[in-house]
Amino acid sequence: MIPAMPLTYELLAVCPHTGARRGRITTPRGTVETPAFMPVGTQGSVKTLGAEDLEAFGFELILSNTYHLSLRPGEDLVERFGGLHDFMGWKGLILTDSGGYQVMSLSHMRKIDDEGVRFRSHLDGSEMFLTPEQSITIQGKLGVDISMCLDECPPYPCTKDEAAAAMQRTHRWAPRNLSAKREGQNVFGIVQGGVHEDLRRESAEFISSQPFEGVAIGGVSVGEPTEMQYPVVKMTAPLLPKDKPRYLMGVGHPQDILHAVSCGVDLFDCVLPTRMARHHALYTLQGRVNAQNLKWAEHKGWFDDDSHFPACSRYSAAYVRHLFKASEPLGARLATLHNVAFYARMMQEIREAITSGTWPDLMERYAKA
Amino acid sequence: MIPAMPLTYELLAVCPHTGARRGRITTPRGTVETPAFMPVGTQGSVKTLGAEDLEAFGFELILSNTYHLSLRPGEDLVERFGGLHDFMGWKGLILTDSGGYQVMSLSHMRKIDDEGVRFRSHLDGSEMFLTPEQSITIQGKLGVDISMCLDECPPYPCTKDEAAAAMQRTHRWAPRNLSAKREGQNVFGIVQGGVHEDLRRESAEFISSQPFEGVAIGGVSVGEPTEMQYPVVKMTAPLLPKDKPRYLMGVGHPQDILHAVSCGVDLFDCVLPTRMARHHALYTLQGRVNAQNLKWAEHKGWFDDDSHFPACSRYSAAYVRHLFKASEPLGARLATLHNVAFYARMMQEIREAITSGTWPDLMERYAKA
Repeated sequence: MIPAMPLTYELLAVCPHTGARRGRITTPRGTVETPAFMPVGTQGSVKTLGAEDLEAFGFELILSNTYHLSLRPGEDLVERFGGLHDFMGWKGLILTDSGGYQVMSLSHMRKIDDEGVRFRSHLDGSEMFLTPEQSITIQGKLGVDISMCLDECPPYPCTKDEAAAAMQRTHRWAPRNLSAKREGQNVFGIVQGGVHEDLRRESAEFISSQPFEGVAIGGVSVGEPTEMQYPVVKMTAPLLPKDKPRYLMGVGHPQDILHAVSCGVDLFDCVLPTRMARHHALYTLQGRVNAQNLKWAEHKGWFDDDSHFPACSRYSAAYVRHLFKASEPLGARLATLHNVAFYARMMQEIREAITSGTWPDLMERYAKA
Repeated sequence: MIPAMPLTYELLAVCPHTGARRGRITTPRGTVETPAFMPVGTQGSVKTLGAEDLEAFGFELILSNTYHLSLRPGEDLVERFGGLHDFMGWKGLILTDSGGYQVMSLSHMRKIDDEGVRFRSHLDGSEMFLTPEQSITIQGKLGVDISMCLDECPPYPCTKDEAAAAMQRTHRWAPRNLSAKREGQNVFGIVQGGVHEDLRRESAEFISSQPFEGVAIGGVSVGEPTEMQYPVVKMTAPLLPKDKPRYLMGVGHPQDILHAVSCGVDLFDCVLPTRMARHHALYTLQGRVNAQNLKWAEHKGWFDDDSHFPACSRYSAAYVRHLFKASEPLGARLATLHNVAFYARMMQEIREAITSGTWPDLMERYAKA
């Protein structure tokens, strides 16, 4: 049995310029300074990186995917192993999603009703069924520090009736998720409601009323344009409990994170920095650059003099370009180290700017990122 | 212009039990304790590893491939960059092969005559021509510490006449290689002669008479069975100059290296530890193991308790198996770190056993490896 780890959230400072807040999540396993970004380790590994790499960047919390881990290696094996931390050699905290989003986006023949989601594994086509209770039980077996509720995340675009129906099912499922908690298991609820202010308000109110350890904004970053995402975040975040962590799921670009932090969001996850790296796109303060571009062929410096992080400091842009052109696996690793370090530094600078009251300077620094 | 780095070899100790010798290669860039194994960085990268990883294992010398680097990124670019060391961020020494072996094994429509080798690039099919002079010139532009002669390496099996003809061409090319040396460029000659004692003796005598900085045994590990390889090494190694480094090209398995060291060989290179790692085969003192085997599915320890090196010490066999099954790139990296560490430790123990006179204990320790 994996010991449960109760979670507390402490609000440390509020930005004098915006709604941004600096805080600290504490569990017996460790603390997470917020706002924080979670690198995504879908299958128990942040692609190309070891746990020691993530530690070196100062990450305290990562995300892993329940759907993938449940299919392979399976939650029972992970539980017998002593939990996901021991299985993957990661000493920090772990949050898992519910599996619902992956079921809807990756699996075949999925069908959702009030009981749960029926689907076929994307690995072998076998038929499976996921309920709110099962999702929380699986995450309990994985032994993670934060479990996410199974919710219904409607696709974008959808009608207001569809958004409302998904929200109502999410609300009906909320107590069922909570009923499956182990002693001390931390579960975050999820606010739905699409792009509709009245639905978001209703959902924020209901989810906030439930005994969750934190609250997430779901249904964002599902394909809607930025000009629709920002108002949803801006309107929803302030409705969430002040004494609990607030998590914006699946976001995002540096600008998206800066905006959401300014609205009072504490936690983020996104595949962008790691996935972009494998497609030779590196984040810099001057914007994203393509490492395969001919302009780097003989460049002895880095892609951005301000962001030549220690993990890559002995290498040149020319070498990284060569590695990608030659399909050398070190290329994706160096690019991933760079992008993840870029996000780690950005979150560090966000936390500092909140405390020091220098948010406008920070926005200027990241204006092109 | 890349500064030339003259090389010296110092014989430090001879094994009381065998012909094994411990020595030291010194250049202004650094030293190499021998016997030494060179990890192979074909395209300027030892696959999945950074230069910092190789340094951490104590490697002082690596091998890179002239054929690949000449096609991409090209020796002129590398020269403008200040040489291969700067280009790839590697502070130790580098040996390059001549390109001849890759031309014969990888390229298309190759045709060899006394002038050189005509071939088509495996990348874009363009027609190219490589002479002994050009090979040494290219390696000079790469700025490496040790350049290898262009030779003719006959395939196995071949007739004695073919072996003799290849050896004679190798001998005719030897002075042409030397004639293209830059001031202070270190060039190693290569002994050919197939599996024939009289040819090997003739070749060792001729190559030893030339002003090379070191001598290699070529034409071994080209597909011949072990029982034919060992006698060639045993007979040829003692014929080589005592005051120069002796290099057995392309070898090999741990047992092959132990045998060749006992015959008096100092340097080795082989793709086995890195290539095997990518095919989930890990070296242990109990022999090579398949990391994907079901027996590791829940194994909390490592594949071999004696070889749980620091680079992998936080991980389990079960996790590495999971990474391979899930096609996670970290799997190949961890396996490579392990195999390369295994070879680094073996070479360290070989050097110690020569000095301390404990060769029989070493042979027992590696009897199953």
